[in-house]
Amino acid sequence: MRAPVAPVRLSSVDLAEVHEKDDLLVTEEPLEIRLGHGPEHDRREVRLSVTMRTPGHDEELAMGFLFTEGIIAERSELLRVEQCTNVKEDERGNVVRAELRPDIDIDPAKWQRNFYTTSSCGVCGKSSIEAVRVQRSRAILPFGTLDRTVITALPDRMREAQVLFKHTGGIHAAALFDRRGKLLLLREDIGRHNAVDKLIGAALDDGLSFEGNMLLVSGRAGFELVQKCVVAGIPLMAAVGAPSSIAVQLARESGLTLIGFLRGDHFNCYSVSGSI
Amino acid sequence: MRAPVAPVRLSSVDLAEVHEKDDLLVTEEPLEIRLGHGPEHDRREVRLSVTMRTPGHDEELAMGFLFTEGIIAERSELLRVEQCTNVKEDERGNVVRAELRPDIDIDPAKWQRNFYTTSSCGVCGKSSIEAVRVQRSRAILPFGTLDRTVITALPDRMREAQVLFKHTGGIHAAALFDRRGKLLLLREDIGRHNAVDKLIGAALDDGLSFEGNMLLVSGRAGFELVQKCVVAGIPLMAAVGAPSSIAVQLARESGLTLIGFLRGDHFNCYSVSGSI
Repeated sequence: MRAPVAPVRLSSVDLAEVHEKDDLLVTEEPLEIRLGHGPEHDRREVRLSVTMRTPGHDEELAMGFLFTEGIIAERSELLRVEQCTNVKEDERGNVVRAELRPDIDIDPAKWQRNFYTTSSCGVCGKSSIEAVRVQRSRAILPFGTLDRTVITALPDRMREAQVLFKHTGGIHAAALFDRRGKLLLLREDIGRHNAVDKLIGAALDDGLSFEGNMLLVSGRAGFELVQKCVVAGIPLMAAVGAPSSIAVQLARESGLTLIGFLRGDHFNCYSVSGSI
Repeated sequence: MRAPVAPVRLSSVDLAEVHEKDDLLVTEEPLEIRLGHGPEHDRREVRLSVTMRTPGHDEELAMGFLFTEGIIAERSELLRVEQCTNVKEDERGNVVRAELRPDIDIDPAKWQRNFYTTSSCGVCGKSSIEAVRVQRSRAILPFGTLDRTVITALPDRMREAQVLFKHTGGIHAAALFDRRGKLLLLREDIGRHNAVDKLIGAALDDGLSFEGNMLLVSGRAGFELVQKCVVAGIPLMAAVGAPSSIAVQLARESGLTLIGFLRGDHFNCYSVSGSI
């Protein structure tokens, strides 16, 4: 397995002096996700995506990605996700392969419209504006009454558990809490969307339900992250930073309780399904 | 033109009370970039990408994107970038079209490997790990000696100019300074990479050179952003946050001076081309 942090020698500079110092950086490397049936290098295998991620929990990342992009509807549609062994030496550890159940079709046409890209090729016609919305989504059961004391305590609890952030100061986190504020799962990644996909993939693999639970993210609440919550059926999402216009719109349409600027004893509520 | 901010009614919550409040959100909407020759809806037109962005400076965003992804090598390869008029009502303002000079080929095969995606289709075979690196890049002229007083003053200068951040608290910025610390250009966007593409596109369109200038970004220094600087030939990049492992590696290989954790009177230097 590749390491999630890497040593670096740097110059620490202030107005008075410069000194050399050893530190740790968060690792960022590409992960290729392949999708297929049966044995590796099946002819119909699809190279699904390359995402820049922090190594670790790669199988969960792939599982979460397939699920939040609407490519699989439930865990049981996947037989397994494994690191590919039949790749070039320098790609080892950076390629995973998801094997679908034989009765589940690999039909790119079906999900071409289901995921959006920061950049894409256009050859397949996928990059149109309708492609932004993932079609599959679970019914969200309303979260209900918010306990302010529980919610304002979440960021500290997440930070305490963020091992990689402590060492690098440069990594996002996503944490799942139950409604009493107990930390259930935490994942860290250089990409905000990857941290959420890893967490959702882990929950899916463990058979953990999202019902009545809360997701906290270390950054802002953009459309992409809110959409992942909606697809997974997470009833409450809280962000340390600001939400965007379309994130609030999607949360309101979907019955997702959306909290932003969760800092100290204060937060903003942009969409509520119960009383505060 | 679509507005970069949108009004919102929210509940402001602290332990003592809840009150309703009006505020502004940063707008996040999809922008589709099309690439073609001659008139709109030419048969060979390519739908190049959909990116979630904050409306405003869309033509610059497209220009910067085409340039930093290696699809065009210089401004003169583009005849124009314009908002498409022949689109559905609800997509108006969210689709731009770049028209290439007739002698410049539209050859997706040429740049399939040149850009990486957070998610992609695999139909065209583009999503392989080699796709991560953009092939075109300018020679970077070493930045030379760093003036610590100038560098530590940059974040305040950028923040003062960040109009959208002041109103929403949730938007990234990229700013170009000359070596004496004079602000030359600033762009804001919900996406870090879009802010940089808008800035690079604007510079390209104005014929502004990057030589001897510095780029400051409000977030972290990930691979994608460092790569955009390298492709554009920007000699120094500074980030308020942390760099990643591969960002440092690319900066060192390319002769880009890379600064991270630029806060108060302190910064870290991860890659230098001169003395500090």
